[in-house]
Amino acid sequence: MSMNHQVRLAARPSGLPKHSDWELTAEPIPTPGAGELVAAVSHISVDPAMRGWMNAGASYIDPVEIGTVMRAAAVGRVLTSEHPEFQPGDHVYGTFGVQEYALSDGRGVMKIDPSLAPAPAYLGTLGLSGLTAYFGLLDVGKLTEGDTVVVSGAGGAVGNVAGQIAKIKGARVIGIAGGESKCRWLGDELGFDATIDYKAQDVRAALRESAPDGVDVFFDNVGGEVLDAVLTRLARGARIVICGAVSQYNTTDGVRGPANYLALLVARASMTGMVIFDYAPRYGEAASEIAGWLADGRLISRVDVLEGGVKSFPDALLKLFAGENTGKLVLQVGSG
Amino acid sequence: MSMNHQVRLAARPSGLPKHSDWELTAEPIPTPGAGELVAAVSHISVDPAMRGWMNAGASYIDPVEIGTVMRAAAVGRVLTSEHPEFQPGDHVYGTFGVQEYALSDGRGVMKIDPSLAPAPAYLGTLGLSGLTAYFGLLDVGKLTEGDTVVVSGAGGAVGNVAGQIAKIKGARVIGIAGGESKCRWLGDELGFDATIDYKAQDVRAALRESAPDGVDVFFDNVGGEVLDAVLTRLARGARIVICGAVSQYNTTDGVRGPANYLALLVARASMTGMVIFDYAPRYGEAASEIAGWLADGRLISRVDVLEGGVKSFPDALLKLFAGENTGKLVLQVGSG
Repeated sequence: MSMNHQVRLAARPSGLPKHSDWELTAEPIPTPGAGELVAAVSHISVDPAMRGWMNAGASYIDPVEIGTVMRAAAVGRVLTSEHPEFQPGDHVYGTFGVQEYALSDGRGVMKIDPSLAPAPAYLGTLGLSGLTAYFGLLDVGKLTEGDTVVVSGAGGAVGNVAGQIAKIKGARVIGIAGGESKCRWLGDELGFDATIDYKAQDVRAALRESAPDGVDVFFDNVGGEVLDAVLTRLARGARIVICGAVSQYNTTDGVRGPANYLALLVARASMTGMVIFDYAPRYGEAASEIAGWLADGRLISRVDVLEGGVKSFPDALLKLFAGENTGKLVLQVGSG
Repeated sequence: MSMNHQVRLAARPSGLPKHSDWELTAEPIPTPGAGELVAAVSHISVDPAMRGWMNAGASYIDPVEIGTVMRAAAVGRVLTSEHPEFQPGDHVYGTFGVQEYALSDGRGVMKIDPSLAPAPAYLGTLGLSGLTAYFGLLDVGKLTEGDTVVVSGAGGAVGNVAGQIAKIKGARVIGIAGGESKCRWLGDELGFDATIDYKAQDVRAALRESAPDGVDVFFDNVGGEVLDAVLTRLARGARIVICGAVSQYNTTDGVRGPANYLALLVARASMTGMVIFDYAPRYGEAASEIAGWLADGRLISRVDVLEGGVKSFPDALLKLFAGENTGKLVLQVGSG
């Protein structure tokens, strides 16, 4: 009998998650009751935000409880269904968790169309990563044509899309990323106007060159030193979008607050936090615009697929925090 | 012959300004040329922002140059005039500097009406302090009726007005100030709904009690630990107005950035800097509304007048940074 392999949270990590913070379990593949379905997962989304979900305490979403299957967005196909809206074989997206088979009552499960883009793209450019980039840049960041936009974590799932959308909307785009190959990809393949390799360059000095008139919109996925550097280069009325702070998620000695935050006063600038779930009523409009850009080749989707199944999830997360992925990092499960 | 006594910046301070950072000078009282006037200063405004003006480097306003008269807003009367719009005896407001007599070409000089309020009030509630409170709260902070508002530096020139305007506009107001007497004044005389003495109380714990549903608008004059404490108590969609950061102006080991800034993300909140000069085209509308509230007693103006003339300016500034003033701190000059 085939089993459902799972990754459960065993302990709340301090710093980077260790292997001992996880437990690999196996259960029989579930059977759907009335109104339920079982999805066979093909790809699991690996996200920086997962680190926050592993902590106790109040946040924008409940923490993952110790002993439960790790929360994760995923795509797959319906295996069995007693739900009126889903049939076996349907391609679906849902918060299925880090496991091979997920039992669901259908809430939050969406059918996806793999003819439009490969299923994993629905975890990235066509999924929450792309939607986060879209609403963060246009709604929170209030991007207008001709703006100078800086994106940190620009080689990551959200950042690369944010930069590409900013280009489509007529902005000048500077991407900050770690490593030469990611920077080359951003410049050569995605058409960013300039890139800064924060591992090799002085970000503040590089910004002085590449954004001589200042930064109008900063889409920040990173926090820490990069945020402080960009704060020194704000244009009057700049908007900083706080999407995340991956540099701070695994710190053990306290988050580094932006010491240069008084630049907000000098520049009459704002720093605003966002959570993508607030935009759920508008996902449709954004997804169809993103799909159009993908279809006509103006937006490029890149997915970094790791193999190895659910048991590789702990390492996949470490790879993410080491900044080793380019584009959306997903873990392939089963036959994919 | 009577002289014009002045205070000039002698050196850029490190930390709190020392007496050796200042130079007392005396010059003959100037004579106006064509298109000029000379004002006899009666009261000089003592402002936290002055500390920033003493530093070198780019900010929202040019630094005061070494050897020049310290920049200051002031009120007084026209002594002599070759300016068509000003007559001897006119009561005026201007950036006259820390000196007894100021030569001016009239730019930025405004006539004031001492029958409406005593002249020093034009440096406080009826002046830039009041205007800063007004636009910061209503325009940047987007205050709406029923909001829970927290004001730091609530006993100071801007803070006390911000809290009073918030009350007038139907908000619930919590003032954070240093010391029991200031807190008592805010509660008993100005009608704040709650006060927190940051010197005696745990701000975070006190906020949990006084703002159980979270903070909608935080008008911050202080920064540092107080800002970090309020960040832990934001309501969804909160607006933080960065008006100043008096706790950080004299630091010698770097500004403390708000380590809890990721609360902006969790709360979908914003932190926005402001500089009052941007609102110059709208000063009139605000001043007339403020004057109306003063006239009908809904807004109370409090001025803390120090005597001792311009030579006392260095000590007046230290008194300000020690938080010893209640309401607007001004230095009386000459006969006042």
